Amino acid sequence: MRKAVGVDLGGTKINVLLVNEKGEVLGRDKQPTEADRGKDYVINKIKDMIHNVLQQGRVSEKDIEGIGIGFPGLMDREKKSTLYAPNLGDEWKKEVFLGRELEEYFNVPTYLENDVNLIAWAEWLVGAGRGTKTMICVALGTGIGSGIVLNGKLWIGAHGMAGEFGHITVLPDGPICGCGNRGCIEAIASGTGIEKYARSILPQHTDSLIWGLCNGNLEEVTVKTIYQAAEQGDKLAIDIFNHAGYYLGIALANYVHIVDPEKIVIGGGVANVREYIGKPMREEFYRRVLPSFRDKVTFSWAELGEDAGGIGAALLALYR
Amino acid sequence: MRKAVGVDLGGTKINVLLVNEKGEVLGRDKQPTEADRGKDYVINKIKDMIHNVLQQGRVSEKDIEGIGIGFPGLMDREKKSTLYAPNLGDEWKKEVFLGRELEEYFNVPTYLENDVNLIAWAEWLVGAGRGTKTMICVALGTGIGSGIVLNGKLWIGAHGMAGEFGHITVLPDGPICGCGNRGCIEAIASGTGIEKYARSILPQHTDSLIWGLCNGNLEEVTVKTIYQAAEQGDKLAIDIFNHAGYYLGIALANYVHIVDPEKIVIGGGVANVREYIGKPMREEFYRRVLPSFRDKVTFSWAELGEDAGGIGAALLALYR
Repeated sequence: MRKAVGVDLGGTKINVLLVNEKGEVLGRDKQPTEADRGKDYVINKIKDMIHNVLQQGRVSEKDIEGIGIGFPGLMDREKKSTLYAPNLGDEWKKEVFLGRELEEYFNVPTYLENDVNLIAWAEWLVGAGRGTKTMICVALGTGIGSGIVLNGKLWIGAHGMAGEFGHITVLPDGPICGCGNRGCIEAIASGTGIEKYARSILPQHTDSLIWGLCNGNLEEVTVKTIYQAAEQGDKLAIDIFNHAGYYLGIALANYVHIVDPEKIVIGGGVANVREYIGKPMREEFYRRVLPSFRDKVTFSWAELGEDAGGIGAALLALYR
Repeated sequence: MRKAVGVDLGGTKINVLLVNEKGEVLGRDKQPTEADRGKDYVINKIKDMIHNVLQQGRVSEKDIEGIGIGFPGLMDREKKSTLYAPNLGDEWKKEVFLGRELEEYFNVPTYLENDVNLIAWAEWLVGAGRGTKTMICVALGTGIGSGIVLNGKLWIGAHGMAGEFGHITVLPDGPICGCGNRGCIEAIASGTGIEKYARSILPQHTDSLIWGLCNGNLEEVTVKTIYQAAEQGDKLAIDIFNHAGYYLGIALANYVHIVDPEKIVIGGGVANVREYIGKPMREEFYRRVLPSFRDKVTFSWAELGEDAGGIGAALLALYR
């Protein structure tokens, strides 16, 4: 069976997987990125990790068809270089020939792609999107990203930047986003956005259970403490998630009006609070879309969890 | 040179064109739709009009490669039937085998497509979008629609409904839209939306020149009277267009974050007030998009005017 290696390079951790053509994981290595130790340290670590997963699968580099690399930033896919990442330190804010270096070192083809696009690619091929032709996949985490599969192809856009869902404006005068604008969906419904909103309204709700869970310290409010409060029936905590879900529903309706997919797949860390965000999200979505979309577009939760990016990276070397 | 006929069936008029492979118009017939006289009347009129343009071009049905038909509603492209149009009367709210009937009558292939998609197709092939691979085209008129060309193909979506740009929410609690929701860009920046907004704020601005131009009657406020006032330097009239342009800029930034095109082409009747809407639109657009888009996405005004839909329909029979 055909095999490939997938590298998911993130700001906090690196996940390297050996994957077969069915998307099954045959070897895995996950380590902290330690980007502060410099670019060469990170690249050498990736090389070691690739050796490790090959060994686990009892194969050599000759047995794999390629190495896919998911990168959290901008890249030049032709030159196989990374151009800019906000979260990997200064050395990654200029061009790094990551793909080319691994290609020469292992003597196999490499493929560079945006990390969230690879989550979409994996979910479409072997996850929650399989069986569809056209799908959008949204990753809710510290930030919000998305990937688009159109008629069985990853749509990366004219400049490789399609699917920047996090920076859709849903509230023109809303909270300030990391990008500098106001009211991006990321500023409202990402983990960071939810926490900021909670901190802004908690002072008016001194009876909320969140206060106890964060030791009376607003700095300690996290999606996790809000979730715990919601689990105990705290109305404010539930309202906080409803607020995020409402705006997500609007943003997704916008997305669907443009792309017209069969399915929306939702993943990422914040999707863990799905029971609280999912209902208001779907309600507002179906309220906002034109009637002709209502019985045609469905939702699924992502199926591949934290391995999605690495699996997608490997599958990019096997299917394009 | 290859030739085809394009039919642009609209709520108020029908435009039929004989077009060559360069997009040049060799024959034309434009007539009122008179939808109130019934579906068979309209279909017979279209047949007559096609005969007329063939005669003008001194060709017969054997000399054309097909007939493209632009339809303002939902359709079944495979069955070549129209399914639903809001503005053509009750008979067009159920299935009409328009494409099939013309195909049998003229014995040439027919192609059915959404009217705004065909404007995009024409602008991409022979208008303001030529030379690009990926483009979005927005038509600002009584309503707001759009079409998407991705890598040289019309993207119609999984259910033929992609590019429903008019129903992107830009202001969740904004004015009510014809679709029943609040704050769709169509409810704010279409001709109808601009007029509604003007009527809502005019009572607080008794010194506006618009009052004189509409004979003191709010019902007579139109985009045209607002435009005339703006031309005379009326501040309120200019503010009214700024308001539409501001929200259009936001909606277009959303569009670009998702699709990542090379170019945005803007057309339609309201585009006539381009000098007033264009500047705030572009300013807010470039303020809202991520920096990586700023030097990559450009604007153009549509070039084909009122013939765009008919030219696009004919070109759909020649290129797909």
